Amino acid sequence: MTAPGPAGSGVELPRLLDELERLAGFSDAPPPAVTRVLWTPADRAARDYVRGLLAAAGLTLREDALGTLFARWEGADPRLAPVATGSHVDAIPGAGRYDGTVGVVGGIEALRLLRRGGFRPRRSIELIVFNAEEPTRFGLSCLGSRAMSGALDPEAMLALRDGAGTPFAAARAAAGHTGPLESVRLPEGAYAAFVELHIEQGPELEAQGVPIGVVTGIAAPATLRATVEGEGGHAGAVLMPRRRDALPGAAEIALAVERAALASGSPDTVGTVGVFRVTPGAVNGIPARVDLEIDVRDVSLALRDRVVEAIAAAARAATARRGLGLTLVTLNADPPATADPQLVDTIESAAAGCGLAALRLPSRAYHDSLFMARLCPTGMIFVPCRGGVSHRPDEYVSPEHLAAGVAVLARTLQRLAA
Amino acid sequence: MTAPGPAGSGVELPRLLDELERLAGFSDAPPPAVTRVLWTPADRAARDYVRGLLAAAGLTLREDALGTLFARWEGADPRLAPVATGSHVDAIPGAGRYDGTVGVVGGIEALRLLRRGGFRPRRSIELIVFNAEEPTRFGLSCLGSRAMSGALDPEAMLALRDGAGTPFAAARAAAGHTGPLESVRLPEGAYAAFVELHIEQGPELEAQGVPIGVVTGIAAPATLRATVEGEGGHAGAVLMPRRRDALPGAAEIALAVERAALASGSPDTVGTVGVFRVTPGAVNGIPARVDLEIDVRDVSLALRDRVVEAIAAAARAATARRGLGLTLVTLNADPPATADPQLVDTIESAAAGCGLAALRLPSRAYHDSLFMARLCPTGMIFVPCRGGVSHRPDEYVSPEHLAAGVAVLARTLQRLAA
Repeated sequence: MTAPGPAGSGVELPRLLDELERLAGFSDAPPPAVTRVLWTPADRAARDYVRGLLAAAGLTLREDALGTLFARWEGADPRLAPVATGSHVDAIPGAGRYDGTVGVVGGIEALRLLRRGGFRPRRSIELIVFNAEEPTRFGLSCLGSRAMSGALDPEAMLALRDGAGTPFAAARAAAGHTGPLESVRLPEGAYAAFVELHIEQGPELEAQGVPIGVVTGIAAPATLRATVEGEGGHAGAVLMPRRRDALPGAAEIALAVERAALASGSPDTVGTVGVFRVTPGAVNGIPARVDLEIDVRDVSLALRDRVVEAIAAAARAATARRGLGLTLVTLNADPPATADPQLVDTIESAAAGCGLAALRLPSRAYHDSLFMARLCPTGMIFVPCRGGVSHRPDEYVSPEHLAAGVAVLARTLQRLAA
Repeated sequence: MTAPGPAGSGVELPRLLDELERLAGFSDAPPPAVTRVLWTPADRAARDYVRGLLAAAGLTLREDALGTLFARWEGADPRLAPVATGSHVDAIPGAGRYDGTVGVVGGIEALRLLRRGGFRPRRSIELIVFNAEEPTRFGLSCLGSRAMSGALDPEAMLALRDGAGTPFAAARAAAGHTGPLESVRLPEGAYAAFVELHIEQGPELEAQGVPIGVVTGIAAPATLRATVEGEGGHAGAVLMPRRRDALPGAAEIALAVERAALASGSPDTVGTVGVFRVTPGAVNGIPARVDLEIDVRDVSLALRDRVVEAIAAAARAATARRGLGLTLVTLNADPPATADPQLVDTIESAAAGCGLAALRLPSRAYHDSLFMARLCPTGMIFVPCRGGVSHRPDEYVSPEHLAAGVAVLARTLQRLAA
C-alpha cells in the first residue's frame, strides 16, 4: 500500500478531465455554461452518468428517497462507522462545470487512486452524491443533506412548490423516487467523519498562491422570500396617482438589501437579490406582484440576523408607504458550522504529506457540509478557482489544482479509514 | 332597412356574450384570466374560432402575411374604398376577456345586426382582426397595423426576437404565415374610414355615468428597452466591494421611471416598468444582467419625450456610477394620433340616434387605430369598463354597455357605408 504521492502524482488527470467534460455535457445551456436544475432531464442524465462511474469503480450503490446516491467501498471491519466524502452535481442556470462536480468526480478518482495504490480500508468509505444542493428549483438549498441531518422534516418538504407551482411530491414522483421521506434521515454518528472536496468560489487561495484550502467554518446563510402585492392595470390608462404598482416598491426593497449589507460594519456581510419575478411581466401591464428572493450571509450569526432584520424593516416601511401588500417568509436561516478541529489538522497534514501548501480559511458559500456537520465531524478541502469566479460559465480550475485536491482528499480518507 | 335602434335594441346579446365566453376559453391561464400571446396554440385557436364566426356571418375572408384577417361584406359599388372596423384578440398574460375582443366579436355582431335590419351597403365593409396588437412577444405593439400602414418595414420586423431568442421569421413560419412581408403594406386611402370599438381601459366613462366615449385622439406611447450588464458570481463568496451586481442598478432605473413620470408636471404622464428580467435569476447567483422594458406615454409628444430623456439620463448616471454596462434602445416612440373630426361627429350623432349619451375623451391606451390613422380617417368608440380596470382578470364590461357599443358601431358603419 502506498500513500498518494506529492502534489497529486498518481492522479489520472486526463481521465478526470474527460469525466468532468462529459458531465458538463449534461446541461440545458449551451457550453461552456452548465444548467442542471433538480430533476430536469439534464440533471437526471448527469446522475445516471455518475452512477455509471461509481459502478465502474467497483462501489456498491444505494439511493435514498430523495435521489441522493451512496456508493460504498466496504471496509475490513463493517461494524465501524464509515468515513464519507462527496458533493453535488446539480447546477444553477448558467453555471460552470466545477462547482460540486469536483467533489464527486474528484472523489471517485480519490477512491480509484487509493485502490490503485493497494489500500484496503478498515472503515468502509462512502461517496455521497447529494441531491438538490442548489436552491434553484424549490428556493431551499441542500435538500438532501438537510433531510439527512434532520434539519428539514418531511412536512416542510411536502409544503415546497417550485416556481411553476409544481408541488414537491409531484416533482419527486416524476423523478422516480418513491420511498418514504422519513427514511432519508440518518442517525447522528452514522459516519465517523465527512470530508468534502470543493472549489473555493472565492479569491483567497489564488490571491495567496496556495493550492489547498482547509475550511475552518461555513458562513451562515439566510434566505428570505418577499412577495410584494399591488394592483395591476393598463400601463397607459391608469394615471400615476391611482396606481399601486408593485415594482417600484420591490425595487426599493432590492436597494435596501444592498444598503443593509454594506452598512453591517463587517466586510464579510453579503446581501443579494437573485430572483425578482414580475407578474404579469408584460411591457404594458402595471406589475401586480413581484416575488423577490433575498440571500444574506455572514460568518457571524448575530451580524447576519441584524442585517436580515434591517431588510425586513425597510421592506415593511416601503410597502406601507406605497399601500402595497407584503409577505415576508424566511425560507431558511441556518447557523454557521465549525469544521471539526481534529479533521482540520488531519487535512492540513495530508496536504503537507503531498508536499502542498495549505491555508486555513472560512467558506463564505454554504455546502452540504453545513448539514453533515450535524451528523458527524466534518471538514472541507478547497482548491482555487480562477479569479474567485463561480456560478458562471467561465468558472475555471486548473488541472494541477484538481490533481492537488484529489491527492489531499485521498490521503485524508486513507488516514480516516485506516 | 331599419337603423339599429335605441340603446342597443336589436343586438343579440345572449349570443354576443356566449361568443365572448367561448373566445375567453382559448387561453393559457385559468379562468377568469386570459393569456393569449402571439402565435401560441391558444392564440391560434382563438383566431380559428373567430374565423368560423366571420365565415358564418357570410363574410369573405382574406389573411395577410402576418396573419391579420380581413372579412369583407361586399358593397353595391365595389369601386368605392371600403369602410373598415375591427380590433384584436391577442391578450397579455393574465388579462381579461374584453380588451380587443369587444371590437372583434362586437364588430361581427354589428355587421349581423345591419344584415338582419336589411341594410345593403354601397361601400364594402371590412372587419379586420389585427394580429399582434399586444407587445408581449416581440416587445413591439401593433405589429399588424404598423406593417399595414408602413410604420414598420420588413427589415425591422426581421430583426425582432422574442424573449426566448426565437427570430421573428421562425415564429411567423411556425404559425403558418408564408407570404412576403412587403405584401402586408396597404396604400394610403385603402379605406374610406376606420372605426374601432374598444373598452375604455380607464375610469372616465364610468365616473361620469356615460355609456359611450368618442375618442378625440390617442396618447403617444414610447417603449424603451434597457439592458443593464454587470458581473455574475456566487452570492455567498463575492464580497460587496468587489461586486458589479446588475440588479441594484436596474432597481435605480425602475425608481427613476416612476420619479420622472411623477415630475413631468402633467397628470397625463405615465411611466411603467412592466418587464424586469434577471439573468441568471437564481437566489444564490449575483445578477449578471437585467433587461427592463419601460413604457412612457403622454397626450403631449413634447412632454413624453422630455420624460423619456430624463429616464435615459438617470439610467446612464446610475450605471456609470456602479461600473455597469447599459444598452438603451427605443423600441418605439410613436407620435400621438388625432381622430378625424368628421368621424368624431358621425360617431357622436350615431350615439344620439341610439338615444345614448356620449363623452369626448382622449385614449390613453394605444390601439391599432393609432396606425390606421396613417391610412385613412380614423375614429374610436369606447364603452366603460368597471373601475377602469383592464389588463387584469377582473376586467368587466356590462352587457348593457356591450349592446350600446355594438349599436353605435353598427349605426356609424351604416352611415359611412351607405
